[in-house]
Amino acid sequence: MQRYFVSKNIINEDKNIAIISDKANIHHIKDVMRMKNGDEIILLTNDGYEYLARINQLNTDVSLEIIEKRINNNELKTTVDIAHGLVRREKREETLRRLVELGCHKYIPVLMERSIVKIEKFKENNERINTIIKECSEQSERGILMEYQNPVNFNDLIKMRDEYDYAFICYEESGRSNDQSLSDYHNLINGKKVLVLVGPEGGISETEFTKLKEANFVPIGLGKRILRTETAPLYIMSVLGYLTEIGANHE
Amino acid sequence: MQRYFVSKNIINEDKNIAIISDKANIHHIKDVMRMKNGDEIILLTNDGYEYLARINQLNTDVSLEIIEKRINNNELKTTVDIAHGLVRREKREETLRRLVELGCHKYIPVLMERSIVKIEKFKENNERINTIIKECSEQSERGILMEYQNPVNFNDLIKMRDEYDYAFICYEESGRSNDQSLSDYHNLINGKKVLVLVGPEGGISETEFTKLKEANFVPIGLGKRILRTETAPLYIMSVLGYLTEIGANHE
Repeated sequence: MQRYFVSKNIINEDKNIAIISDKANIHHIKDVMRMKNGDEIILLTNDGYEYLARINQLNTDVSLEIIEKRINNNELKTTVDIAHGLVRREKREETLRRLVELGCHKYIPVLMERSIVKIEKFKENNERINTIIKECSEQSERGILMEYQNPVNFNDLIKMRDEYDYAFICYEESGRSNDQSLSDYHNLINGKKVLVLVGPEGGISETEFTKLKEANFVPIGLGKRILRTETAPLYIMSVLGYLTEIGANHE
Repeated sequence: MQRYFVSKNIINEDKNIAIISDKANIHHIKDVMRMKNGDEIILLTNDGYEYLARINQLNTDVSLEIIEKRINNNELKTTVDIAHGLVRREKREETLRRLVELGCHKYIPVLMERSIVKIEKFKENNERINTIIKECSEQSERGILMEYQNPVNFNDLIKMRDEYDYAFICYEESGRSNDQSLSDYHNLINGKKVLVLVGPEGGISETEFTKLKEANFVPIGLGKRILRTETAPLYIMSVLGYLTEIGANHE
């Protein structure tokens, strides 16, 4: 069933009705899906709830009757934020799309020493980013929109450390030596707030690495092969999703 | 250090020398990397070994001295083949690239009922595919080239079942009900031969699903969200890699 993120205030819970009046959703309902009176959709209010609703009237606005309010249960119990060395727009957008599907809570681009993109030249099209996140969240049936943080400087990332229970650095040498590993944290992270940093194309510099360790970021390996900067976030998000959602339930 | 997959027969182990004469590798060494006499590279022979070698002469051919032969230890102990409902070329190639990095053993496109691409119209550019796999394998430091199987029909996939110890179907309903799960197989798959099928854009049809279950494919869930056909193979490959390489070592 088609799903639409909407603003909470379009729903009148007392009267069990809702009115959609924003252009993008109306265009999708009328022109893309060609829906009719009586068709059912799901409205999401980005607070963990969803509403099964039936279309009553299709005019300039779309009027709906609420059939059922229920909890959306598709979010990970562990909050995973991915910080990612600033990469080019196409890579950033593709990473965004996939991280939404995989259940990431927040994506934080970070300007790092070896980032090819420079922050002075950086101009984000936030409207475009928000549309990507909304569409992917609807398709992947998430209950909450992934947050997108406008790019931060490396030192700001360090300052953010205290907001999290655990912070990890994806570091290839750890993958080979196996001296530190995500599996040591397997049973600790469930339900916690976790931050994971993946370096940019050129990797994390030695200075940055030292600062991160001083700030209590833990280097972990992602296996023995070298992952590109656009693949590593998907690996870590997949594994953390698995450990939280599936691995934890069956042990 | 730069790595090159080469044919085994260019290496003379008795004399500790090697001669590279294929155009692509020579072009990369001379024109892209601008290497000089004395520079060191790693030669990979696609049999699990690698050779540290020093350039002796750069002419039409490249002559090298072998410094050390060693085992490449970067392959997964579990053999994971990914069968993937046939998708468009761009998606197929992007999936290939990432599966190489994540350690997949073989990629098998499968013509399925809901594949948008039809096999009659299908013409693979094998040279292009091989170049992608070679370059990604070198960059990700694999010891063995991922295999690429030319697309097969659904019934051929069913017949291939017997070659594997375990065969799984990625199936979203299992992700929600949690009735079957990869974690039930966590301790069984290590060192085994595993096949995983991911459906095409439109999913797996009911007829196909029934046939797969009859052939002893086990449906497993990939969490509560709906993954696109190009994201699901990365999720499963990441998780199987983690379970084989990292999770297994630390319990």
